[in-house]
Amino acid sequence: MKNILQDERLNMLNHSCAHLLAQAVKHLYPKALFWVGPVIEEGFYYDIDLGDEVITDESLLKIEKEMKKIAKDGKKIIRHEVSKKEALEIFKDNPYKIDLIQRMDEKNTVISYYTQGDFSDLCRGPHVESVKELKHFKLLKFSGAYYKGDKNNKMLQRIYGVCFDNEKDLDDYLQELKEASERDHRKIGKNLNIFITHDLVGKGMPLWLPNGAIIRKELENYIYKKEQKLGYKHVYTPCVGTVDLYKTSGHWDHYQENMFPSMKVDEEEFVLRPMNCPHHMLVYANTLHSYRDLPIRIGEFATDFRYEASGAVKGLERVRCMCQNDAHLFVTPEQIGDEFKKVVELILDVYHDFGIKNYKFRLSLRDKEDKEKYFDDDEMWDTAENKLREVLNSLEIPYYEAVGEAAFYGPKLDVEVKPAVGPEVTLSTCQLDFLLPRRFDLSYIDNEGNKQIPVVIHRAIFGTFDRFTAFILEETKGALPLWLSPVQINIIPVNNEYHLDYAQKLQEKLSNYRVELDSREEKLGYKIRESVTKKIPITLIIGQKEVDNNTISYRLYGSEETKTVSFEEFNNLLEQRILEKN
Amino acid sequence: MKNILQDERLNMLNHSCAHLLAQAVKHLYPKALFWVGPVIEEGFYYDIDLGDEVITDESLLKIEKEMKKIAKDGKKIIRHEVSKKEALEIFKDNPYKIDLIQRMDEKNTVISYYTQGDFSDLCRGPHVESVKELKHFKLLKFSGAYYKGDKNNKMLQRIYGVCFDNEKDLDDYLQELKEASERDHRKIGKNLNIFITHDLVGKGMPLWLPNGAIIRKELENYIYKKEQKLGYKHVYTPCVGTVDLYKTSGHWDHYQENMFPSMKVDEEEFVLRPMNCPHHMLVYANTLHSYRDLPIRIGEFATDFRYEASGAVKGLERVRCMCQNDAHLFVTPEQIGDEFKKVVELILDVYHDFGIKNYKFRLSLRDKEDKEKYFDDDEMWDTAENKLREVLNSLEIPYYEAVGEAAFYGPKLDVEVKPAVGPEVTLSTCQLDFLLPRRFDLSYIDNEGNKQIPVVIHRAIFGTFDRFTAFILEETKGALPLWLSPVQINIIPVNNEYHLDYAQKLQEKLSNYRVELDSREEKLGYKIRESVTKKIPITLIIGQKEVDNNTISYRLYGSEETKTVSFEEFNNLLEQRILEKN
Repeated sequence: MKNILQDERLNMLNHSCAHLLAQAVKHLYPKALFWVGPVIEEGFYYDIDLGDEVITDESLLKIEKEMKKIAKDGKKIIRHEVSKKEALEIFKDNPYKIDLIQRMDEKNTVISYYTQGDFSDLCRGPHVESVKELKHFKLLKFSGAYYKGDKNNKMLQRIYGVCFDNEKDLDDYLQELKEASERDHRKIGKNLNIFITHDLVGKGMPLWLPNGAIIRKELENYIYKKEQKLGYKHVYTPCVGTVDLYKTSGHWDHYQENMFPSMKVDEEEFVLRPMNCPHHMLVYANTLHSYRDLPIRIGEFATDFRYEASGAVKGLERVRCMCQNDAHLFVTPEQIGDEFKKVVELILDVYHDFGIKNYKFRLSLRDKEDKEKYFDDDEMWDTAENKLREVLNSLEIPYYEAVGEAAFYGPKLDVEVKPAVGPEVTLSTCQLDFLLPRRFDLSYIDNEGNKQIPVVIHRAIFGTFDRFTAFILEETKGALPLWLSPVQINIIPVNNEYHLDYAQKLQEKLSNYRVELDSREEKLGYKIRESVTKKIPITLIIGQKEVDNNTISYRLYGSEETKTVSFEEFNNLLEQRILEKN
Repeated sequence: MKNILQDERLNMLNHSCAHLLAQAVKHLYPKALFWVGPVIEEGFYYDIDLGDEVITDESLLKIEKEMKKIAKDGKKIIRHEVSKKEALEIFKDNPYKIDLIQRMDEKNTVISYYTQGDFSDLCRGPHVESVKELKHFKLLKFSGAYYKGDKNNKMLQRIYGVCFDNEKDLDDYLQELKEASERDHRKIGKNLNIFITHDLVGKGMPLWLPNGAIIRKELENYIYKKEQKLGYKHVYTPCVGTVDLYKTSGHWDHYQENMFPSMKVDEEEFVLRPMNCPHHMLVYANTLHSYRDLPIRIGEFATDFRYEASGAVKGLERVRCMCQNDAHLFVTPEQIGDEFKKVVELILDVYHDFGIKNYKFRLSLRDKEDKEKYFDDDEMWDTAENKLREVLNSLEIPYYEAVGEAAFYGPKLDVEVKPAVGPEVTLSTCQLDFLLPRRFDLSYIDNEGNKQIPVVIHRAIFGTFDRFTAFILEETKGALPLWLSPVQINIIPVNNEYHLDYAQKLQEKLSNYRVELDSREEKLGYKIRESVTKKIPITLIIGQKEVDNNTISYRLYGSEETKTVSFEEFNNLLEQRILEKN
């Protein structure tokens, strides 16, 4: 999506369009008082005091119409520079502008205002030359907004819009906007009952509703099976630790601003954990290890807590309480390459299953010249970095190197995925760590009986279940593949009196799947439409023909075609789609 | 187990035996200085300063022998009453006793000491008449103990023992002690790598190691399937809420002493949740409900946190961070009976699967006379209480009524299970709640279109996964049934050179199970013994006969018998045992 703020011409255009909006509002609501109308990433808005009046969808159309009319008139936009005193006189009827002017420093700022026809507005500019240029705009939405953002102040009416130089750019943008809105996982999450947030639970703390919980459980089962096959051992560890644990790991000194405040309990000081690495270090440290036992792979669906500013939290995408698909691999230096390769292969395997194709591998290495920034063990770094490169080359994976971007404690690989809308996201990561095993005094006995320090590989495939779910909802617009879908099959009998029995028998026969039977006394068309709205992958329509011939008629989501098959054929179809993650 | 403290005769006997211990120590270690030797629940101990000497298993035997010798001598135990000054003179060589005497208040205390042959000890008494009576005793263990329990003080040697009136009582007690120790889930948990605790994570915060995690996951899968069949919908909700959430629920006012301290984050105040009921209320409240939708059953494997004194925490049994097998059922008043019945049936079903037979149902009702203590809705109480009684009667379940023991908000059923050792534990619970739905303003629309308030049923079957696991480890002494066992099958090739291939093929064929292959170059007997120590349910011993005949020889845990069968027979055996939860 275009960022209006970052394009000089669009910036000016949208700024002028905000004035045009204000002028139109003034024509329709003569008592309107204007506060500020800035340009934002998505276009512009204006905050307006309309007294007791409120904006509606209808009034938005009227305002737009008036704007078109004024634009057609084609008045010039003229700049005036004035003294503070003059400005105060000109805008004396508007307390909001007076407030602005009074806070201006005359010595260092030129005070200016712009006039177009019968309308003037205090403004730094620049603006386009004439309102004639403002032809290709659209008012997008409106909302309430407190004056100065303070909820103790008056609620103003905020109107949003966007303006382009030509109709095609505007149409493209509106299309993209529609697309982004359709894909917004918060909207999908609400419509499909995936998750909610609630002020009483707190910001950034989503609750997964039953539908969301099924998705999450399927994701957990999916990756658990893969990890079991690869020899991972899962653990459950508490999502708190003492402050001393995070002092030992170094998080308390270097990561505290991302942590929740600590809790004193008797003589102990607990803190919600931002990461679970330290817990896994303790699991490793609990047993003596021989080189024969390595690699040891400790996995967990680990709940972690991180402080995010309340304004930054967003649905499942950016949260304060998350569940990581995390694992720590404890390896000898010789095993780095093999183990790293297995992680990369797992990432590719998972991406294949989810149809994720648009991604880049980014290999972050140290800057050899910078001796301060990186853990001091040149040999270890060289060996590790070469191994990682070798693996990526041997797998013929396109990647780019980011020199100087490694963490202090070791090189890492991030996978940057390009979603259908919005900027790239890092889903998977694989990081080497030379330091943490030292901080926790980890060891194994090598084949000569000497104590050695293992290397730790942090890795996450989904990243967090929260963000991955947000991602997959946006990619699919909520139309999930059969295996992930909360409801997999919806059975609709055409007429309960004649077809309900058969439909119920089908439901029983399909009890391995998540099946709903819609036996409400509603019209068939209504029920089919609802099945589509709920994005259920397969809808069965059961009428007399199906009962008579002992068949099944089904529609796949996204298709209008109804196919009729035997139960066995249908069952094969289901198995096939589950297998292919389709 | 007998509580020595609570039996007057045993109390005296053990107190005298502590003196006997001290006398024997004095004979063997003439420089020994004695601090205190109290009677405890399990017998007695004495804290002794042995200078640089330390107690060993061997010295314990020597001391015991010396005690026997002195007892045989049969000296009388004689009481002396003295002034403080006299006492200070008599014990002038022992700074520990001087410390005791100096803190005595002569006016209110008679200062006494007891003499038996060549040994005297400051003591309030009473004692048995002669050391002859001290024949049936046993020294149990020893440990270090700081003087006055302060780690800045000197470490003394503490020796534990117990004494009875006859050899049978002593033997029975030692047998019970052995039994309790064998069943202690903390010991089993350590030996079988089920869980650990660590000071850096904090008291009462166990970490489930891979073996424990398998048990927990099996328990989760087991109960999840049962609950799915019964129409429960699972959710995932965060283990924190705002303080306002718990003000709304009433926990903040009535349960705060069991909660962790709150955490201020920007404008919000978070707290680790002690219960997840409020979260489930919000899940219900998120949607409008018709009477047709009820009952709604919201389940969760819910992490909760409760404050326990650091001295009270114990392994997995009593923790500060727990995972509940929790659910809340939202029902119409008419549905109370049916829904309650389903819960009771689920409890019975689960107990059957786990072979739990020794339990009592306890139905807690209100005291009708006490109008203050109970939520005020006589009709609701009467209906509910009668329904619960009816259900228990119809299921022919023995139960007892505890009038006046109901919670403020409704009647409840608890199931008290008698474990192999120790007092009864409440595993399952089913509580009606008339109040919480009101506090959260919950409603549904009845068949006449009127808004009604649902009744909430809180229920837990396992209770917490933590405590249930502790329970099941103690019941089975760690010898878990096949389906729950972290390692299910251990394959031991008699000779790697000739039998490893076949053993590996077996391992592959058994990949649906958790199989280990012990191919270490160790003696067969050693490997079989280790398999037993690890309490692995099935050990395969693969030698030439098995390779030649394509058969399997196996031993079941607890049996010395080796059976030889075909792969199919073996597979049937596995399936049968899994099915029967054996």
